[in-house]
Amino acid sequence: MALERLAIVGTGLIGASVGLAARRAGVRRVTGYDADPEFLAFAAERGAVDEPAESVVAAVEEAELVVVATPVAALRDGVRDALAAATDGATVTDVGSTKAALCASVEDRVRFIGGHPVCGSEARGPLSGSAQLFAGATWFLTPVAETEPERYRLLHGFVASLGAVPLAIDPVAHDRLMALTSHLPHALANVVLNHAGSVRVDGHEPLGAAGGSLRDMTRVAGANPRIWIDIFLDNAGELRAALGEHRRRIEELERALESRDAGWLARWIGEAGGNRRRLLAEAYDDPGALQRVRVHVPDRPGVLSGITQALGAEKINIEDFELDHLSPERGGTLDVLVGGEAAARRAADLLEAQGYSVIVSPAFED
Amino acid sequence: MALERLAIVGTGLIGASVGLAARRAGVRRVTGYDADPEFLAFAAERGAVDEPAESVVAAVEEAELVVVATPVAALRDGVRDALAAATDGATVTDVGSTKAALCASVEDRVRFIGGHPVCGSEARGPLSGSAQLFAGATWFLTPVAETEPERYRLLHGFVASLGAVPLAIDPVAHDRLMALTSHLPHALANVVLNHAGSVRVDGHEPLGAAGGSLRDMTRVAGANPRIWIDIFLDNAGELRAALGEHRRRIEELERALESRDAGWLARWIGEAGGNRRRLLAEAYDDPGALQRVRVHVPDRPGVLSGITQALGAEKINIEDFELDHLSPERGGTLDVLVGGEAAARRAADLLEAQGYSVIVSPAFED
Repeated sequence: MALERLAIVGTGLIGASVGLAARRAGVRRVTGYDADPEFLAFAAERGAVDEPAESVVAAVEEAELVVVATPVAALRDGVRDALAAATDGATVTDVGSTKAALCASVEDRVRFIGGHPVCGSEARGPLSGSAQLFAGATWFLTPVAETEPERYRLLHGFVASLGAVPLAIDPVAHDRLMALTSHLPHALANVVLNHAGSVRVDGHEPLGAAGGSLRDMTRVAGANPRIWIDIFLDNAGELRAALGEHRRRIEELERALESRDAGWLARWIGEAGGNRRRLLAEAYDDPGALQRVRVHVPDRPGVLSGITQALGAEKINIEDFELDHLSPERGGTLDVLVGGEAAARRAADLLEAQGYSVIVSPAFED
Repeated sequence: MALERLAIVGTGLIGASVGLAARRAGVRRVTGYDADPEFLAFAAERGAVDEPAESVVAAVEEAELVVVATPVAALRDGVRDALAAATDGATVTDVGSTKAALCASVEDRVRFIGGHPVCGSEARGPLSGSAQLFAGATWFLTPVAETEPERYRLLHGFVASLGAVPLAIDPVAHDRLMALTSHLPHALANVVLNHAGSVRVDGHEPLGAAGGSLRDMTRVAGANPRIWIDIFLDNAGELRAALGEHRRRIEELERALESRDAGWLARWIGEAGGNRRRLLAEAYDDPGALQRVRVHVPDRPGVLSGITQALGAEKINIEDFELDHLSPERGGTLDVLVGGEAAARRAADLLEAQGYSVIVSPAFED
C-alpha cells in the first residue's frame, strides 16, 4: 500500500529533498511547514511541498507519515509537536544525525520511529534540495521493542521509494557507529588542521607546504558550525569514548616509534591496508584489480572532456576520478581509476597518443 | 651554464623520472647505476639513462651532478659511495623524504646538498617513471653554511629545469615540516582506519557503514610499507613530537565536550574553516568564490565525458573534480568545482538539460 499523504516539518535541504523525492515516487499529497516562511515559500515554489501550512498542526493533521527535518537542536520540540498534532494512525519520523538522546526523550514509542539519511551534503535551504539527494544513500531507521510491524513497513517502504537503502539499528548503536565513522573523522580533521595551522617551522607555513595527504585528511574541516556544534554536543559521550581510544592508539604508535619497532610498524601498516580494502569493497567489485592512471593536466577548459571522451569512446569505464588541483599556473594531477591492467594499458596508450605523460600503478597496494 | 653530464644512482620511479625529465630539459648525457640490473635495463630501455654503468664509480666518475635516488634505507651508503667516486668539482644530491639524519651523517658538507621532491606518487620502478612527475611539485633543497653559491645555483637551476619549484629549507626544519604536513596525516590515517576496523557495533561493521569523511581521511592508509616504515623510523623524533601535540589537542577537545562548551567548539570550527581556506589559497585564486556542482551519476562508460564535454564546450573551467564512487549498482556522486556563481548556474542548467538532478552550493562555507 503506497503512501498517499505525507507531511514535512522543516523544509530546508533535507526536508525539501524528501518532498521532491516523495512526489517523484508517487506520493499524492505533500503538506509542509517551516518556522522560516521564506524556506517554506521556496520549497513550495520548487514543488517540494504542494500545500504549505501555517502551523505544524495544520501541516500534519491529515498525514499518514510525518517527517521532522528541522535542525538537530529543534528536533525534540518538532517531534513532540508533530506527535501531539498527528492522528493516532499517523507515524512520525525524523532525519537527525544523532539518535540516542532524541529516541530516549520521546514518550510515544509506538508512533515515533527515528531515522537518519546519510547523504553528506553540506548545503542548506530548499534551493539546494534535490529528488536525487538520497539515491543510493544509507538511511538508518531505529525501530524499538514497541514498534509495530505495519508502521515500520510503511516507513521502510517510503525510504526505499526515495532511492535510499533503509538499515535498521539500535539508537545507541547508531550514535556509536556515527562517532567512529563520521564524528571522529570530522573532529580529527579540525584538530589536525588547527595543529598544522598554528605553527611556523623556521619561517615556513605548514599550510603553504601541505601535500595531498593533509588536504585529503582535512576535506571536512570547518564544516558548517550551525550543524556540527549540535552534533558534537548531542553525541558527546560516544565521541569522547572514541577520542579516548584514539589517544590510546596514538600512544601505542609513539611507543613503537620510541623502541624503533619495525615489525610493529609493518603489521600496523599491513592491517591498515587490509582495512582500506574492506572499506573500498563496499564501493568496488574488485578493488585489488583497480589501476590508477595518473596524468598531469593544464588548467584550462576542455582538457577533462578530451580525456574522458577518449576513454568513453573506447568503452573504458572510469571507476573513480579525481583532479588534484595544484594552481592556475601549474595545472593539476588527474587520477583516473579503471578496472584491470588491460583497461589501464589501453587508457595509457590513448592518453599518450594525446601527448600526455602517463603513470600507471595499482590503485591499492598489497 | 646548463648541465651537461648527470649521473643517477638508483633508477627506480624517482631516478628514472629525473633522467627522463633531465633529457627533456636538454642535459646531454645521463649515466645511471642501480643495484638491481633489471631496474637499470628498464630505465635505459625507456631512455631515462643513456649510459647504464656497472658500478657507482663508473656511473659518477665524469658527472657534474649526481642524484642519489635509492630507497631511504640505502641513501646513506649511496651518498657516501657517490661522494667517494665523484670528482672534486661534482655536486651530489639525493631525493629522500627525510633530511636531518642523512645531512648530519654526510661529512662533505661542501659537495653534498640534500634534496626532496614532493611528488606523492606511490608507484615503484622505472616503468612508472615520467618526465612529468615533477611538474609543479615542490622540491626541497637543504643548503647549509658550507654550501657554495655556485653549486647551489647549479642544483637549483637543474631542479627548476625539471619543472619543479625549488625551495630552500634547513634539514631539521624540513623534517619537522614533513612530520606535520605528511607523516602525521599518514600515521593518523592508519590509526583511524585500524580503530574503525577493529570493532563491531551491535553487529554493524563500521567500515561497511563509512561515509565520505572516513574514506577521504584514510585515503593514504596502508601506504607502501617498503617506503613508510623507513620514513616513520627515520623521522621518529619529529613524528613523536607531533603525535604528542596531537594528543594534547584531543584532550582539549574532550574537555570542551565534557563541559559542553559550545563557544569553544564554535571558535575551534571557525579556526579550522579559516585554516582550510589558507590551505586552499595555494591551489585556487579565490577559494571563497568556488561553487560545488553535485550530480548523481550512473556507473557506465561515457557518462563523465558527456558531462565534462558539455562544460568544456561552454568554456566552463573545471577547477576540481571528484567522483565519489558508491557502488556498481548505485553509481556515484560527482562533484565539480567551478569558479563563481554565474559559471555554477550555467553548469547546472547544462546538466539539468541533460536530465541530471543538480545541487549547487558554495565549495567552502564561511
